[in-house]
Amino acid sequence: MNQTVDFYFDFSSPYGYFSSEKVEEMASRCGATIVWRPYLMGVAFRLTQRKPLFQVPMVKEYSARDLERVARYDGTEFKIPSPFPIATVVACRAYYWLSQQDMLNAKKFATKLFRAYFIDNRTISEAAVVIEVAGQVGVDVKRLTEALTKPDVKKLARTATNNAIDKGVFGSPFFIVDGEPFWGHDRLPHVEAWVTSGGWWKEAEHLFTPKLCP
Amino acid sequence: MNQTVDFYFDFSSPYGYFSSEKVEEMASRCGATIVWRPYLMGVAFRLTQRKPLFQVPMVKEYSARDLERVARYDGTEFKIPSPFPIATVVACRAYYWLSQQDMLNAKKFATKLFRAYFIDNRTISEAAVVIEVAGQVGVDVKRLTEALTKPDVKKLARTATNNAIDKGVFGSPFFIVDGEPFWGHDRLPHVEAWVTSGGWWKEAEHLFTPKLCP
Repeated sequence: MNQTVDFYFDFSSPYGYFSSEKVEEMASRCGATIVWRPYLMGVAFRLTQRKPLFQVPMVKEYSARDLERVARYDGTEFKIPSPFPIATVVACRAYYWLSQQDMLNAKKFATKLFRAYFIDNRTISEAAVVIEVAGQVGVDVKRLTEALTKPDVKKLARTATNNAIDKGVFGSPFFIVDGEPFWGHDRLPHVEAWVTSGGWWKEAEHLFTPKLCP
Repeated sequence: MNQTVDFYFDFSSPYGYFSSEKVEEMASRCGATIVWRPYLMGVAFRLTQRKPLFQVPMVKEYSARDLERVARYDGTEFKIPSPFPIATVVACRAYYWLSQQDMLNAKKFATKLFRAYFIDNRTISEAAVVIEVAGQVGVDVKRLTEALTKPDVKKLARTATNNAIDKGVFGSPFFIVDGEPFWGHDRLPHVEAWVTSGGWWKEAEHLFTPKLCP
């Protein structure tokens, strides 16, 4: 089977980062293709009247521990960056500009950008940092710098965000496979179960039988 | 090892119900003792300025699907009840009154109460339903009916809720083991890893090495 999994995330989301480090392994295991779709989660936060984790009392203290623990559990290198969260509109524009030319390299770029923020504490809200990271995956830095000033490139982040919201996306990470939405890094095993079983959710006879999937 | 895991939940929380169906199995696997601690999550929602899932735009539609999917993934029987959510103060009082006499039977009662709501759609906000379910696990129905009118029994739910909040509990399910907080049904594997590894979180040398636990 070759199923497409849409992987929505915000470059400033730590759980999005955790999934970015696991999602391609998962895809190889079950023969799926992952389409990486960064967007600006702030817009979704406004629609759902929610706040970033670190702005919610009690949840804030908890989240700091959970993040470090998930990193350890997953074996993913991670440090809570500062400032956090940050604007990711330039990162998003650069990603889509690049993905129009070379989807695979765009994924490499996204991976490096995530690591720059969540391992090396680089301020990936700044165009200079985004461009530098793009350079590391062989992107023509001059062309990207120029592209980022163009109106049609500037529009790419907004368009991606509108498209995500239209699909019901409101968090990061957020996966859609076969029309079915999955929210959260902890739902990756569910996504995998969905793909490997050909959509157990839809099979009425599978209702309430013991777990079907590995 | 025999570690105590505090299991906080609200009787009207579906993810709390899902965990209630798994937590004792987990405890037997790793030799832990679970202390069931129902509380009134509404108080925590006010403190954290959050709303029940079904009152948040976009999240509401998503959650209905996620709940049914998690039930299926876990092999746990489940139907979204109506009305949902409901007040659980009487259930909470009855639980603590019973647990003062017989902790094991109080767990059985809690399990039956959860199932009455999430399988049979019984309105467990009503004292009559709570008392009926207690009768099913051999509780003296007359004594319970009387107890529920007493001021010191009425206080039990509020005290439990204050204690939970003091410990930083704000969701359902919520686990505390060895001072470490874990929020969400999807954190059960983390709780188990914590218990079986004797607290991998604290071991600096385990930082960022591949997953340690089964």
